[in-house]
Amino acid sequence: MSADRKTAAIIGGGVIGGGWAARFLLNGWDVCVFDPDAQAQRKITAVLENARYALPMLYNTALPDEGSLTYCETISGAVQNADWIQESAPERLALKRKVYQTTQEHCRADAIIASSTSGFKPSEIQGCATRPEQIIVAHPFNPVYLLPLVEIVATDENPPEMTDRATGIIESLGMFPLRVRAEIDAHIADRFLEAVWREALWLIKGEIATTEEIDNAIRYGFGLRWAQMGLFETYRIAGGEAGMRHFIDQFGPCLQWPWTKLMDVPELTDELVEMIASQSDAQSGAHTIRQLERMRDENLVGILLSLKTRDAAAGALLNTHEARITQPPDTSGAEPITTLNRNVPIDWTDYNGHMNESRYGQVFSDAADVVMALLGADAEYIKGDNSYFTVDIHIRFLQETRTGQRFSVHSRVLLGEGKKLRLYHKMLADDGSVIATGEQMLIHVSLKTRRACEPQPEILAKLESLAAAHATIPLPDHLKDT
Amino acid sequence: MSADRKTAAIIGGGVIGGGWAARFLLNGWDVCVFDPDAQAQRKITAVLENARYALPMLYNTALPDEGSLTYCETISGAVQNADWIQESAPERLALKRKVYQTTQEHCRADAIIASSTSGFKPSEIQGCATRPEQIIVAHPFNPVYLLPLVEIVATDENPPEMTDRATGIIESLGMFPLRVRAEIDAHIADRFLEAVWREALWLIKGEIATTEEIDNAIRYGFGLRWAQMGLFETYRIAGGEAGMRHFIDQFGPCLQWPWTKLMDVPELTDELVEMIASQSDAQSGAHTIRQLERMRDENLVGILLSLKTRDAAAGALLNTHEARITQPPDTSGAEPITTLNRNVPIDWTDYNGHMNESRYGQVFSDAADVVMALLGADAEYIKGDNSYFTVDIHIRFLQETRTGQRFSVHSRVLLGEGKKLRLYHKMLADDGSVIATGEQMLIHVSLKTRRACEPQPEILAKLESLAAAHATIPLPDHLKDT
Repeated sequence: MSADRKTAAIIGGGVIGGGWAARFLLNGWDVCVFDPDAQAQRKITAVLENARYALPMLYNTALPDEGSLTYCETISGAVQNADWIQESAPERLALKRKVYQTTQEHCRADAIIASSTSGFKPSEIQGCATRPEQIIVAHPFNPVYLLPLVEIVATDENPPEMTDRATGIIESLGMFPLRVRAEIDAHIADRFLEAVWREALWLIKGEIATTEEIDNAIRYGFGLRWAQMGLFETYRIAGGEAGMRHFIDQFGPCLQWPWTKLMDVPELTDELVEMIASQSDAQSGAHTIRQLERMRDENLVGILLSLKTRDAAAGALLNTHEARITQPPDTSGAEPITTLNRNVPIDWTDYNGHMNESRYGQVFSDAADVVMALLGADAEYIKGDNSYFTVDIHIRFLQETRTGQRFSVHSRVLLGEGKKLRLYHKMLADDGSVIATGEQMLIHVSLKTRRACEPQPEILAKLESLAAAHATIPLPDHLKDT
Repeated sequence: MSADRKTAAIIGGGVIGGGWAARFLLNGWDVCVFDPDAQAQRKITAVLENARYALPMLYNTALPDEGSLTYCETISGAVQNADWIQESAPERLALKRKVYQTTQEHCRADAIIASSTSGFKPSEIQGCATRPEQIIVAHPFNPVYLLPLVEIVATDENPPEMTDRATGIIESLGMFPLRVRAEIDAHIADRFLEAVWREALWLIKGEIATTEEIDNAIRYGFGLRWAQMGLFETYRIAGGEAGMRHFIDQFGPCLQWPWTKLMDVPELTDELVEMIASQSDAQSGAHTIRQLERMRDENLVGILLSLKTRDAAAGALLNTHEARITQPPDTSGAEPITTLNRNVPIDWTDYNGHMNESRYGQVFSDAADVVMALLGADAEYIKGDNSYFTVDIHIRFLQETRTGQRFSVHSRVLLGEGKKLRLYHKMLADDGSVIATGEQMLIHVSLKTRRACEPQPEILAKLESLAAAHATIPLPDHLKDT
C-alpha cells in the first residue's frame, strides 16, 4: 500500500453506493463499506463484478492497482480514516442527519462528507450537523462506475477550498463534477428526468403508448442526439445560420401550446402500476436484470469508446483521465519496451466470442504509436508534417483472446536507420504466453509531399540509439532467416 | 432507371425536407422538390452533402444507386408522378391545407401524402381535404438522414392497408416507423422534448445553470443511457431483481415533490432570449453551424456503428436494413469474387486523417467472412461449433485511404484443401488502383475442441470447386515464388 493511498468510506451499499465503491476501488482507493443490510456484501460484489468487466475497457492503459475493500460493522469504523465519505442512505432526512451525526463524531475534520441525494438540498442535509462546512451533495448517475456526471452542490457554509478539493477528487476518479450554481430541489438532471417520467406516465395511462414504444421514441430519436450534444447545442444546429435567437423566436410560440400534461400529476393507482409493470415485462422480461445490466454496460462502453475516438463529449473526459493515469514506458536497458498494458474492450470482439483478427493489427499499430512517441515522433511532430507510415505487416495468430482479457505488448526495434523503422511486437497474456506476434515495416514520410524522407535529426539519433540497444536481444526463431 | 424505381415529392425543403430528400435519394428513389424559397436549392445541397458523407458509413455494403433530383417550379409538377409526397411546410394549418388541396388536384389517388408536422394532429390536417384517407402524419427527427425514428400517426379515415404500406416504405428507407396508437398533441417524442425544454428555460431564467451546464448534465449522464435503452428499460434495471412494480412504488412518492416548474410557463422576454443566445454563443460559438453539423453527424455515426456491432437498439435497425440491401456476390466464372463494396466510416480513421492501418486487416477479415458465407460456413454453421480461424496474415500497404472513400475488395482462393484455406485479397480504389493486398491463411477448427479439423463435406466440396476455378487466375508477382 503506497503512502499516498487514499480511503473512501461508503455509507449505504445499494446500486449507487456499490457503484461509488467500484469507482474508488478501481481508481486505486481503499474502500470501507458500512451497510446494515445483510445482503449488502452480495449486492456490492455484483456491482463490482460489472464494474471490473466494463470500466477498464474505457482506457488504452491499465487502471491503477485496485485498492482494498473492507466491510465494517459500524459507521464509526468505516469513517475514522476516510478522506472521502460517500453517503447513499435511503432518502429520509431524519435518517441522513443521524448518519452525519455519528459520522462527524468519528471522522476527520478535513474529510469530505458527500451525499448521493437527489431528494434533498445541501442546506437541508447540513442542518443539525456539528460541522456543516464538511458536508456537500455529490449526486451521481447509475451506473456510477461508467457514467461520468456528478452534480456537486454546495452552500455558503462550505469553504470554497473544500468544494474545489471535492471537484478535484471527482475528476481524479475519471468523473465530471458539475458545479450547480445554486441549490434547488432535485438539482439539475433529475428535474428533466422527473418531467419526462411524469409525461410518460400520462402517455401510458391514456393508452397512447406502451413502455416499449416510449423507449423506442427515445432511443431511436433524441436519445441518440443527447448522448453527445445535449439540448442547446442540438437546437443551435437546428436553428442553422440564422442563430439561436432566431430559433428561440420561432420555437417560442409552442410554449403556449398544450403539449404537456405536466401541470398535473397522474395518480399512481394499482391499475396504472400494473399497466406499466406488465408492459415492461412484455418488453424486457426475456432478459434477467443481470443480462440487461450487461447489455446496458456494453452499449455504454461502446458509445463512450466511439466518442473517445473523436475526443468528443464524454469521450474527451476519458482521454483526459487516460493521459493522467498513463505511465511512461520504461526504456532503460537492452530489453524490449512494454508498449501496451490493457484489456480487450467489447467492441474488439466478434461473433466467435474472441478478439476480431483485425484488432491484433490495432494492438501492434497502437504499440508502434508508443514507440514513435518515445522517439519524439508524437502528435506535435505530426503537426509539423512528418510521420511514420506502415508499409507492410506480418501477423502470426497463436492464441485466442477474449473480451475483457488483460494483455501486454513487448516491442523492439529490429532496424532503425534512415527512413526505415522495422519493429517486432509480442502480444503476451497475463501468464507470459505469446498470443500473437507482428513484424512491422514503417517508413518515415513527409505529410506535405506524401513521400518517404529521413526523420528530423533528433528523432533519428534516438532511433539509432534504441536500435543499437535492442540489437543485443536474440532474434526469435521465425525471424532468424529473414 | 429501373422499372420499379419510385418517386418522392418533397414539399418544403428546409432542414427537415432536405433530410427527407436525402433519405429517399440515397435509398434509390427519384426526388422532386418544390419550395418557393429562393435559397431552397442551396439549403438542400448542403443537407445532401452532409448525408452523402455520413449515411453510407452506416452500412458494410454500398447503398442503392442514388436517384435523380429535380427542382420543380410548382406543386403540381412535383407531385404528379409521386408515390410518396412529404410535406414539411411551415407549421400553419391554413397553409398546409392549401398545400394538400393543390396536391390532391394533381397527385395519384394511391400516393401517400405524409406530413412532417409535430404541431398538428392528423385529423386536423385531414380536415377540408378532398381525400382525407390519403393523408397521414410521418414525423421525423433531425438529422433525418441519420436518425431512424418516424412517428406515424393515422386516423380512422386512413384504410389500414394504406398505413401498413406507409410503414413498409419507411422501413425500406432504413427508418423505424413508430405507430402512435391514438392522436394527441405533439405525438410522443416532442412531448418529452417540450417538457425538458420548458424545464431548461426555468433553470436558465433562475440562473441555476447555463446552456453549457445543462448540456453537460444531459450528455455526461442520462443522455448516454437514452441512446440505447430509453426510460423504462433503464429504470427496470435500476429497480433490480425486485422488479418494476417495486421500483415504481419506491419512486412514486417523488411525484408529489415539487421537482418541476412545469405547471407554469416562463415568459420568453427579450432578456431571457438574450441570456440563452449569449450563453449558447459562449458554449459553441467557436464552431460554425457547418462544423457543428459535421461533429454531430460523426458522433451519431460512431454511436450507431457501436450499437450495430452488438445488434443493439438503433444498431439492430441498421443490421436489418443492411441485410435487405446487400447483394450476393457473383461467383460465376473464374474471376476473383467482389467480396466488399463500401466506404470508409469515420471510426476507421486516425490522426493522420487516413484509414488506420488496423482497418486494412478488418477489410480483409470482412472479405474472408463473405468467402466463408459463400462456402456455407456462415453464422448458422458456426452455431454448429465449426469455424475458420485466421492463423497468419501478410498485408502490404500501397496507398492511403481517406474517410468516406469508396472501395471494393476482390478475393480469390489460393489454396483450399482439407483444413487449409489460403486467400488473397486486393483492396481497390474506385479508379481500379490497388490500395492494399492481403494473403491470409485460415484453418478450419472445431469450436468445441478448439483444434484444427476438416470442414463438413458440403463445405469442403464447395471450397475445392472454388479453388479449382481460381487456380486458372495468374498469381500476382510478389506471390510467384511462395
